[in-house]
Amino acid sequence: MIAEIIITGDEICSGAVIDSNSSHIAQMLEGEGIQVLRHNSVCDDIDTIVSILKETGNRADIAVVTGGLGPTTDDLTPEAAAKAAGVGLVVNDIAQSSIEDFFKTRNCSMTDIDRKQAMLPEGAECLCNPVGTAPGFQLKIGRSHFFFLPGVPFEMRRMLADSVLPWIERRYGSKREFSFIRNISIFGMTEADINQRLAGLAEKFSGIKPGFRANFPEIHVKLYARGKDKNTCNELLIKASEWILSKIGDNVFSVDGESMEAVVGDLLRHKKASLAIAESCTGGLLSHWITNVPGSSDYFLFSGVTYSNEAKIKVLGVLPETIERCGAVHEETAKEMAEGVRRVSGADYGLATTGIAGPGGGTDEKPVGTVCVGIATPDAIKEYRFNFTSGNRSMNKKIFAMKALDLLRMELLSKK
Amino acid sequence: MIAEIIITGDEICSGAVIDSNSSHIAQMLEGEGIQVLRHNSVCDDIDTIVSILKETGNRADIAVVTGGLGPTTDDLTPEAAAKAAGVGLVVNDIAQSSIEDFFKTRNCSMTDIDRKQAMLPEGAECLCNPVGTAPGFQLKIGRSHFFFLPGVPFEMRRMLADSVLPWIERRYGSKREFSFIRNISIFGMTEADINQRLAGLAEKFSGIKPGFRANFPEIHVKLYARGKDKNTCNELLIKASEWILSKIGDNVFSVDGESMEAVVGDLLRHKKASLAIAESCTGGLLSHWITNVPGSSDYFLFSGVTYSNEAKIKVLGVLPETIERCGAVHEETAKEMAEGVRRVSGADYGLATTGIAGPGGGTDEKPVGTVCVGIATPDAIKEYRFNFTSGNRSMNKKIFAMKALDLLRMELLSKK
Repeated sequence: MIAEIIITGDEICSGAVIDSNSSHIAQMLEGEGIQVLRHNSVCDDIDTIVSILKETGNRADIAVVTGGLGPTTDDLTPEAAAKAAGVGLVVNDIAQSSIEDFFKTRNCSMTDIDRKQAMLPEGAECLCNPVGTAPGFQLKIGRSHFFFLPGVPFEMRRMLADSVLPWIERRYGSKREFSFIRNISIFGMTEADINQRLAGLAEKFSGIKPGFRANFPEIHVKLYARGKDKNTCNELLIKASEWILSKIGDNVFSVDGESMEAVVGDLLRHKKASLAIAESCTGGLLSHWITNVPGSSDYFLFSGVTYSNEAKIKVLGVLPETIERCGAVHEETAKEMAEGVRRVSGADYGLATTGIAGPGGGTDEKPVGTVCVGIATPDAIKEYRFNFTSGNRSMNKKIFAMKALDLLRMELLSKK
Repeated sequence: MIAEIIITGDEICSGAVIDSNSSHIAQMLEGEGIQVLRHNSVCDDIDTIVSILKETGNRADIAVVTGGLGPTTDDLTPEAAAKAAGVGLVVNDIAQSSIEDFFKTRNCSMTDIDRKQAMLPEGAECLCNPVGTAPGFQLKIGRSHFFFLPGVPFEMRRMLADSVLPWIERRYGSKREFSFIRNISIFGMTEADINQRLAGLAEKFSGIKPGFRANFPEIHVKLYARGKDKNTCNELLIKASEWILSKIGDNVFSVDGESMEAVVGDLLRHKKASLAIAESCTGGLLSHWITNVPGSSDYFLFSGVTYSNEAKIKVLGVLPETIERCGAVHEETAKEMAEGVRRVSGADYGLATTGIAGPGGGTDEKPVGTVCVGIATPDAIKEYRFNFTSGNRSMNKKIFAMKALDLLRMELLSKK
């Protein structure tokens, strides 16, 4: 079974936006045992869209199309689909009532423009959108079953999971081979290092296809196993994961796709310990990550984003002499920040970052990319200094925050 | 002039890697005045590559292809290009000596496998690769000029700049039209609302093509103008932007692609005012955004991410009675948080958020999506309550933080 993906939108074609929808859709389809042969992105031009729909209709068994379902004038997909299928546009009752419901539950009123979204090609089956106004639809064009979804990633993902994958399951069910994936997340090693340590993986586990993906500042090793029997595939994946763990060690922070902040959160919850954070150079990113995890209020108490020296002194109790003697970016300052935030908040653990994210503020002694981390535990206070040379401000904030979380993870693991 | 982009590689087609090459190539080509109508990604299958090359050769004036030039068995592009052009593969002398040079300057020896990379389609013009072993090439297939480049982004970008763009400049020079873009950013309106208010835009400004893009929680209106004369295009874009401003008003927060946090930062800097933040439900995201702007330490002093009630009381001086009487999520609490963080930090402005991001913690009276915002200014303290129904935790954090920044922006604008 062969699938194609079609992404519509000028913003994708002109390069203004990087398309991440294709990659998600491809992964999900491959997970269902369907091979994706082509991705196509086309601009918002009706003739171009019609012709790609017709071509794909001659080549693929299944096609997923995103974008162009909204209410505005550059939303051309339903019209293009109708033309490609040789039918007209008609009001789809299910689409109409799903749009009405969407507005009703939000106490908003529906405009004529919103109503445009209920016009679908004749014969199309409406795919309801539980999280947005634009409904999707399913339509046969040529020999191919087309699924039209919104371009907003959040809505597309939900509808792919709720409507498209179950449809495929119902229709093609037991005929397929499945793909099983394991996502091993690594921090603190380069792709080349990892590649070298894992030499021989493909020979040792012949049913496994590995894939490497840099997702700065993490590296993910994805293991794909294909087969009809779920148990056999899973056993193989577990064995391969264990082998990788034995080769890479503690740099692996999760083997099931869990994020670093979720792993740290699990460790804190397991120890019934609480956390407070003092951030300078990471500017709130550490706290943002920690609080992205649902239920993080169980262990996260407080973070002081102390950008000014005054705030470090007044809120965290860092000694003015320390800042004067060592500077704001220094192990001693990081130590006092960690200790201070632990004391102020009453938390079990205090984690602190101070550094230079750039672009300005670097010196010969403390160049851009320098970060000092302090960790205050119930028993001790530890301090570290690192220099990262990855470049821009946003990357520096990320790698600083990740390094701090990774140090806390190792600290929590050592006391397990 | 019409271009297409073709990306080859199983890792792209299976979704294991997100393709960022297309977006870069498209931007560069559009900058040269060439319209990119389609991107295509195909897997490493010789027949699929041959057919996409032939199809594109019938449609486009120019095509850029990446990937599959290396020495390994899954590198199939030169063979596919030769088949599509109906020629054979031959040793290309320039390619051969460029590969030899590459190894010589690095004191490495060349293997037979490396030599495979000097086999190019007959009649192809070699494009030297100054930063890697695999040379690229230029070849006419159908009516289209094809440029074949490596898939490694670093090598591809260098060769696109060194070889492809100058070739286009030489060949098509003064004949081309250029594309100019303006990005108008809007917060607090739906796409349908915006579309309705901007009805008539396309008729009024016939040289302008508008595009709408939802980038939650913002909506961007992109204006594209095409022409040979830069000044004429720019004047048209300015007029169209002014018209849009007159229709949408204060919901437009920038007309040049600047982010909300940068706009707020500019307003603070202009007033020589400083800012402190107290965050509960936004969990550090507000501070993270504010500190993403280089130079934000000029106006940003401190943020207290006070997740626990104790932290609200101890760090910000919120009255325990207020929390007991009204709860942590309440206008009164937001007010005291804003006032408290302003006092503690000595900042001119204090901005506070407290709300329920979910998934847990909602009640009938205060459902998930409720947020209270407090703003303490040198003259007054204001408080607000909103309810957003967009859904998940991460979206709620975003829209809460954006709403708070937008209220601060309006406050700063009103005192300009």
